[in-house]
Parts: sequence; structure tokens; C-alpha cells
Amino acid sequence: MKILLWTLTLTSLAVAQKPLTLASQGSFFVGGEYKTMPAAPGRGAAGEITVNQMYVQYQIPVNGAQHVPVVMAHGCCLSSKTWETTPDGRMGWSEYFVRKDRSVYLADQVSRARSGFDPSTINAVKAGTAKPSELPNVLAATHQTAWSIFRFGPKFGEPFPDEQFPVEALDELYKQMIPDLNSTLPNPNPTWKNMAALAVKLNGAILMGHSESGFFPEQAALIDPSGIRGNISIEMPCPAMTDAQISALAKIPTLIMFGDHLGDVQGGIATWPASFDSCQKLVMQLKAAGGDAEMMSLPKMGIKGNSHMLMQDRNSDQLADLILGWIDGHVEKKKTR
Amino acid sequence: MKILLWTLTLTSLAVAQKPLTLASQGSFFVGGEYKTMPAAPGRGAAGEITVNQMYVQYQIPVNGAQHVPVVMAHGCCLSSKTWETTPDGRMGWSEYFVRKDRSVYLADQVSRARSGFDPSTINAVKAGTAKPSELPNVLAATHQTAWSIFRFGPKFGEPFPDEQFPVEALDELYKQMIPDLNSTLPNPNPTWKNMAALAVKLNGAILMGHSESGFFPEQAALIDPSGIRGNISIEMPCPAMTDAQISALAKIPTLIMFGDHLGDVQGGIATWPASFDSCQKLVMQLKAAGGDAEMMSLPKMGIKGNSHMLMQDRNSDQLADLILGWIDGHVEKKKTR
Repeated sequence: MKILLWTLTLTSLAVAQKPLTLASQGSFFVGGEYKTMPAAPGRGAAGEITVNQMYVQYQIPVNGAQHVPVVMAHGCCLSSKTWETTPDGRMGWSEYFVRKDRSVYLADQVSRARSGFDPSTINAVKAGTAKPSELPNVLAATHQTAWSIFRFGPKFGEPFPDEQFPVEALDELYKQMIPDLNSTLPNPNPTWKNMAALAVKLNGAILMGHSESGFFPEQAALIDPSGIRGNISIEMPCPAMTDAQISALAKIPTLIMFGDHLGDVQGGIATWPASFDSCQKLVMQLKAAGGDAEMMSLPKMGIKGNSHMLMQDRNSDQLADLILGWIDGHVEKKKTR
Repeated sequence: MKILLWTLTLTSLAVAQKPLTLASQGSFFVGGEYKTMPAAPGRGAAGEITVNQMYVQYQIPVNGAQHVPVVMAHGCCLSSKTWETTPDGRMGWSEYFVRKDRSVYLADQVSRARSGFDPSTINAVKAGTAKPSELPNVLAATHQTAWSIFRFGPKFGEPFPDEQFPVEALDELYKQMIPDLNSTLPNPNPTWKNMAALAVKLNGAILMGHSESGFFPEQAALIDPSGIRGNISIEMPCPAMTDAQISALAKIPTLIMFGDHLGDVQGGIATWPASFDSCQKLVMQLKAAGGDAEMMSLPKMGIKGNSHMLMQDRNSDQLADLILGWIDGHVEKKKTR
């Protein structure tokens, strides 16, 4: 048994250290529209800026055409850094998926990171043409809030005994946490439309979301399902859907994943057990409507100690393999091209 | 002659379409410190956030160890997207340098894009504990301002006859332009210290800056020159330096590059001829102090029509080759490892 474990570890290291060959890589934007900014002292004349664009960075492996591309969208107070090198320096899901021959598209949510945000209201308040109370609610999650919502342990500074998140590298996760300006966005959130448009542009893609963006794949599908081959939703509440919405979503293979310790954090503001139940209900509704939907509850599968940031947990490769296996079995078996 | 041009074009395409093999890639942060946020309604209890960290994304080619790594820092109202796929879809400098066997490190400036920013003051104004006049000046350059500062033509919408920027793809540049929150930064700008620290971490690096960050390589060297093997500064004003500062900077090979049409835009707010003169003066001072400093004025070299966004201009590969040649001749001939 010990020898088997050693072999697995060495194989895993060998994969990480092998050179990576890409057919191509690059970045582009999806969406975006003009908005007129008024003249302001020190900022010059009135003119247009572009808002609501979504920055996308991609890598296509040499054998990428054999598989459906995967779009990854990050959660609150984070950027696409979520999917890259983990806080403790291991390979993230983005490169891991590329090394498994999947084309990967990382999307910075509209109003975050390289997608930029609409600063109109902040500038209007500074100029005195809007009230301070109109300022956007800029979400900046503290380390303490992150600990609680991301479920690293029963209370701040005390990890669960079986905690899978590399808590020794927490400072590196805290550096990934950046202000969230989604409160500046119009309704519906332009990221939804942009994700749907990206799937069309790619001539078919699997959409993956996490936490704040966990249900974005479904929201995208409700706007335009034509490019979406599969939806993967990780750890979020599942809002109630109408029969028509269930019927639309049931046409798309859907995977939902939740980690461990959902109800084990004291004094947290997140309601993970309720989120899990709402998604369990959605899975049942999708199945009842003839859909292919699956709930992967990691602890129920015997995989213990996973946090909300499960793509960065110590067993992140194992969880990626679960998702890749689901894609192979549920999305690509139906591939017609 | 026509045949030669065809050959060049096909060769160039062949380079772009060849698979790219990387020894490794990833991302990490440099710097960052804790800051306490007060309790606020709807945001929960007081706690710490991390600020002033710098996000860095890197690719190391298989033969990367043969060359000194290059760190690229972007300008105002932009992100590291500056160095990636150009607005008209060609390969950017980041991948071009990697394909020329250089390890490339793209740094999002502190307070921009994936580095995040310090939202304290915005939240304090919203909470009523600071005045609206204390709000940061959030720079959002309009399309019109960009046209003028980036020198695309004599007036908005009218390109120079020899304009090298792909103006047909301007909408894609406008999507790269995101709000600039550098006004929230402490003094000195943490990006300077972080760039110096990155050069040390890499055991030697060349620092490259553009526009707002054009002089950041020199500012980094004035904080800690120990890791810096060369400085490349593209299109910015060069501030006056003391004799001691000139003496310190003269120890580092320095390249400064300026494009065309510096004085040809009507009604622009930028003062490019004055910026050029200030940098020409710096080059002479560095040389007088025994330094290896070079001013590449592209039009004086017979290369016409380059904009301020010259890394995205149609002849961007040609300009990259000029820089690579300078590195080979002025930085790496002195390499001791």
C-alpha cells in the first residue's frame, strides 16, 4: 500500500514537471459597450468609455480539438487566479485541464480584475453630482470572513483536523482576494450573456462556475443555451426555477459539486447546508424533467475535508479528475462532431 | 521584391502557428501587507485584508535558462493584457519573447486588475466616516483621451497616414482600458519595491515599463538594484535625478524607446516632446557617468508611424527584435552565470 502511494506521488510529480506544449494561447474580450462619461475637472472633456466587457485568457493544447473546451469563472472577491498555481505552489486546474488535452478559457468576471469596472458612480460622488449613499458596495472580504465562508475550520485560526486546504499558505490566498464591484453591474449581470456568447464563439463549450459565479453557467444557458454543451456548478445556492427554466436547463448535462464541513463552522454568515439542499432539489427537478444531472457531494463519496476553495485543496488533482471523468461520460459521449 | 515580402509574411505566420513548448508556467504574488478594516453594516466585523500585493504571471520556455528573464509592467488604465494578443489578433510581446527563449513575467501593477486595490476610502465615504472629496481620483481614460495620448492621429477619428497602430481594431484596445486606482497607493508606489523584489527573487531580471510605469524600472533600481540586470523604459517623462541617483542608475544597462509623431497631435494633454527631451537628457547623464544607456527614437532610425501603444502596432515583432537585440548586446554580453 505504501509502495502504491509512492508510485502515485511520483507519477503526479512527473506530470507536473514535463514540458507543456500548446497549439496556441492568447486573450480577448467578449461583450462590452460604449458609455458616455461627463466632462469633469482634471479628467478633461466628456467622452466614451467601454464597460461590461469580459476578459478571457486561453490555452489550447496540441490535442485540444479532441475535447470540448472548458470555460472557468471565479467567485466573489477573486479573479481567474483562482484556477492557476495554488497558494502552496502546486499546479492549478487551468494547467491541469490543459495537460489533460482540454482547451481552457479563464474569464475574469465583468467588473473584476482585467475586465475592469464602471467607475461612473464613484466619480460622480467625488464630483458632487451623486450622494455618498449611492456609492457601490465594494465587497472586500476580510481574512476572518474568508476563513468562515471558505470553511477552513470551526473557528478562525483553527483548521479542521482533516482540512484539505493548505492553510500554511493562507497568506497567498488572501493576496488573491480583491475588491468585488459586482454591485456596479446592470441587471442581468453582463457576465451571464458574455459566457453564453463565449460558448457560441467556441462552437460549443462547457461552462464552469464557482461560488458567486457557481450558477452563472445556468444563468448563461437561460439566456442562450445554443453553445453550451455542459454546466459545472461548484458550491453556491441554487435559486428556485420555474418549470420552463427547469425544462430548458434539463437539456444540458449538469454537474454540481460540494465539499465537506458544510455545517461545521461556528458563527459563519454562509448558509452552506441550505445551499446544498437547494441544489439537491434542482438536481432532482432536472432529473424529473428528463435531464442528466448529478450531485457530487465529496464527503458522501468518501472524500473528506474539502473546503469551499476545493480547486486549491491538497487533493485538487483528484477532484479535477472527477470532473474530467464526468465530462468524458456525460458531455463527450454525446459529442457529434 | 514581392516574392521576398511573401516569404517574410509566410515565415512570420509559420512562427506564430508553431506549437509553443514551455518548461513551466504559473502565477504568484510579490509583496502585500495586512490592513485592518473597521466593522461596517452589511460587511460584518472588523478584520484584516491584504493590500499592496503585485500579481505576476509567468512562462518559462524550455531554453529559458540561457537568457535573463524579462519583467513587463503595463501603463495607465491598462493591465498586463497590454503584452498579450494584440487588438487585431496578432501575437503580443509576452508570447513573442517566450518564443525567443526568454522567460517572461507579466506584472499587474499594485491597485490594478488581478493585484486588487485598497477599497478603504471608498467604503469609508459610503459609511459616512470620510468626505466625498477624499474619494480616490479613479482615472478612466475616454476613447477620445486615449486617441490623443496614444497618438493615433492628428485628431480623433483621423489616423496618421503612416499610422502603425491597427486602428480598425480600436474597439478591442478600448476594452483593455480599465479604471486606474493608483491614487489610492501609498508613497512610494509599492509596485517599485515589488518589481525590485521580483528581480531579486528571479536571481536577476530585466525590468521593462511603459508609459505610467515607464520609469518604474529606474524607481525599482533606486530602491534595490541588486537583482536588476537591465532597464527598458518605453515612452514616459524622465524625472530629474540627483548626481547620486544618476550614479546608481549608471551601473545598469538602460534602453529607452520612443515612437513617432510626438508633437503631431492637436489639442492633446500629453507633452511627448518634453518627455522625449527629459529622457534624452537622462541618457546623456547616464553616459557621462560611465553608464551604458541608449535612446532608440524609432523615427530617427527610419521606423515611421509608431504610436504610444507600440507593442501593439503592426510592426510590433520588429520592435521586439530591436529590444531583444539590445538585450543580447548590452545585458547578456555581461552575463557572468
